[in-house]
Amino acid sequence: MTQLTIGLLGCGNVGGAFADLLEKRRDAIAARTGIDLRVGAIAVRSVAKHRDHVSNPDLLTTDTRAVIENPEVDLVVELIGGIEPARELITLALGAGKPVVTGNKELLANHGAELYAAAAANGVDLLFEAAVAGGIPLIRPLRESLVGEDVARVMGIVNGTTNYILTQMAQHGAAYADALAGAQQLGYAEADPTADVEGYDAGAKAAIIASIAFGVSVVAGDVYHEGISSITSTDIEMAKRLDYVIKAVAVVEGDTSGDTPEVAVRVHPAMIPADHPLASVNDSFNAVFIEGNAVGDLMFYGRGAGGDPTASAVLGDVIDAALNKVAGTSAKIGELVKARIRPIDDLTCAYYLSIEVADRPGVLAQVAAVFGDHAVSIQSMEQRGLGDDAELIFITHSCREADVRATLHALRSLDSVNHINSLIRVVGA
Amino acid sequence: MTQLTIGLLGCGNVGGAFADLLEKRRDAIAARTGIDLRVGAIAVRSVAKHRDHVSNPDLLTTDTRAVIENPEVDLVVELIGGIEPARELITLALGAGKPVVTGNKELLANHGAELYAAAAANGVDLLFEAAVAGGIPLIRPLRESLVGEDVARVMGIVNGTTNYILTQMAQHGAAYADALAGAQQLGYAEADPTADVEGYDAGAKAAIIASIAFGVSVVAGDVYHEGISSITSTDIEMAKRLDYVIKAVAVVEGDTSGDTPEVAVRVHPAMIPADHPLASVNDSFNAVFIEGNAVGDLMFYGRGAGGDPTASAVLGDVIDAALNKVAGTSAKIGELVKARIRPIDDLTCAYYLSIEVADRPGVLAQVAAVFGDHAVSIQSMEQRGLGDDAELIFITHSCREADVRATLHALRSLDSVNHINSLIRVVGA
Repeated sequence: MTQLTIGLLGCGNVGGAFADLLEKRRDAIAARTGIDLRVGAIAVRSVAKHRDHVSNPDLLTTDTRAVIENPEVDLVVELIGGIEPARELITLALGAGKPVVTGNKELLANHGAELYAAAAANGVDLLFEAAVAGGIPLIRPLRESLVGEDVARVMGIVNGTTNYILTQMAQHGAAYADALAGAQQLGYAEADPTADVEGYDAGAKAAIIASIAFGVSVVAGDVYHEGISSITSTDIEMAKRLDYVIKAVAVVEGDTSGDTPEVAVRVHPAMIPADHPLASVNDSFNAVFIEGNAVGDLMFYGRGAGGDPTASAVLGDVIDAALNKVAGTSAKIGELVKARIRPIDDLTCAYYLSIEVADRPGVLAQVAAVFGDHAVSIQSMEQRGLGDDAELIFITHSCREADVRATLHALRSLDSVNHINSLIRVVGA
Repeated sequence: MTQLTIGLLGCGNVGGAFADLLEKRRDAIAARTGIDLRVGAIAVRSVAKHRDHVSNPDLLTTDTRAVIENPEVDLVVELIGGIEPARELITLALGAGKPVVTGNKELLANHGAELYAAAAANGVDLLFEAAVAGGIPLIRPLRESLVGEDVARVMGIVNGTTNYILTQMAQHGAAYADALAGAQQLGYAEADPTADVEGYDAGAKAAIIASIAFGVSVVAGDVYHEGISSITSTDIEMAKRLDYVIKAVAVVEGDTSGDTPEVAVRVHPAMIPADHPLASVNDSFNAVFIEGNAVGDLMFYGRGAGGDPTASAVLGDVIDAALNKVAGTSAKIGELVKARIRPIDDLTCAYYLSIEVADRPGVLAQVAAVFGDHAVSIQSMEQRGLGDDAELIFITHSCREADVRATLHALRSLDSVNHINSLIRVVGA
């Protein structure tokens, strides 16, 4: 039996659940792998604070570097989050030849390429299943099972908060503000919900998915994002009538056939056909849908957040890193190459548009002419409401985003158009 | 750049697709892994037969042993299927220190433990992602990501043929015989559909899933199975009215807490709540739903058969085995321990029952009394039809299968009961 000792940085929601889970599963893991894993040191902000899942308070320290430099520590688990000091600490651990398991999406979405290179240079593992889609095995299948696959597109519901809000709106007719307040009461949304509802959290995950799926260097700042705060009950209702659901999605597309690979990475609300597998992913669940050239359509579904599911992902990585360490090997990501980021204007898809208009004869003809002038062709149109409440709802055929934006610009200057209410991309059709 | 040569046994639907896919992806794989993979020898039944995807017919031979013993061959891919000579050939390859990738579910479901042990003894990989659920990454996540997880249950739609037939019956009101004939026309079902519709194919996959999920030795003969050929349009229609769908499922449950682990492995049609993630898995798609103690609910969805998706799974394994070979390591399954197989009589779940009765006063009281006598309590009852066509449809509360069987036995001796039409287990509620 090989004994390996883990140095744990951070013992909050996920860190505590991890310490707990490892203790429960220690014997079973030893029986299946021949490795006896234990937590040997835990860096926390306050040593005095009582912690249910830490049986031995002597393990606690506020000195993060000491945990990494402790000669007994074989493996480091980083769960403190944020960019600094996590970046410095992970770099230190890798430099000391100690494998690192992290769930830090913000760090990887901004400094991933540098850290993967440091891991490779030191011949040790840097594993991060917990950083994207919580407990769902996604990074390992992408890195290993699908490394030979020509992936065309990855589309994910990777933020549980926004999925919960949109599910409440769709299933109970809740208004956005009420659904958000409910999510906050349940602890699904923070007091300041910006990171979730404006797509920053999903954007960081999209950057990591893009890097792994296409072997390119993509950072959070490369991701186009739109939030869900402008989605109205009318949009939700119209989506249902047209046999769609509205979901907040992260979409990653890549073309690695040319000399310089090109990727498109974006996060936005989308209309998804009701019979698409992602459409029935509800509440705070996450799912990632992968379109591969040979494998066809794949979907991975599960809990994208929460202490226990995330701790499960961390534990899977820890066991993997431990097995690799014993075997004297490490998982390779390969060098991430520079990619051209495709601008959102170059996106081609269908669009849902809701436009508030004056309700008088000839308006539709005027509006339709503007669409036609910009090479945007209309698949279906429906008028909702009358008089001052009249709205025209369009679904376009597939067209370029730049043309749709030019159409909207021109429509705004029409007397008969009062307001552009919504513009939602249609995906998965 | 490391060069590795593959010996391919079998060049049918999957073998051909694999040779093709490897050729297409060879450069991309080399760029990402540093390994240049090529097929160096192919064993086939007929060398004369024209093959589109074999660019160099000189690689073809009918001598399977020569392919394995060829000193240029570093890795063996076995896609001939069946038990012998596949078993002998894989054993030969492993003994020669050559990693093996196989999609042979029949072999692994009957001789898995022996072959995994041979791989371990020789320190080489035996990988078999393609044997269960085709292109869906399932075995690797189970073996690696979830090795530390306390898995409670795995429930899968792992046979595309029966899922296609049941989807046709549910969505288009087709009768079983017509749906089967349609599946045969499309090539989804064989001329003799027994292996699919009676659950033998799914049973072999269930045995493999049970072995990997719980680290126990389970063979195909341990699996309880019922086919779908007795499912009627009435069952399908009643399921819909009661907010269920009928799916053919493989269910694997384990309890590894005692000295001897206990597993239940069964394949049968089941009523699944319409809002369960498995319920919307339609047509020939497969999906595997995993219930873990820490990770919660997970589902993996995709193509369970077909040349390209299965070839994608084979390619993922080949790259993994190649990377391991270069690193001088191999994946470990661990020793599979003996388990007690829980008999179907000990199953506890809810049941759907359809009973043809004489339509006269007092019959329900008689029937209900028999249920009560056997400690089977009724959750809902509904009468369908009148006179000679009268049917009583029951859904029970959760109860023991042995008690339900005793109930049916006693009901058959009642004058007022003409026929037991259906008994379908309710799962996922």
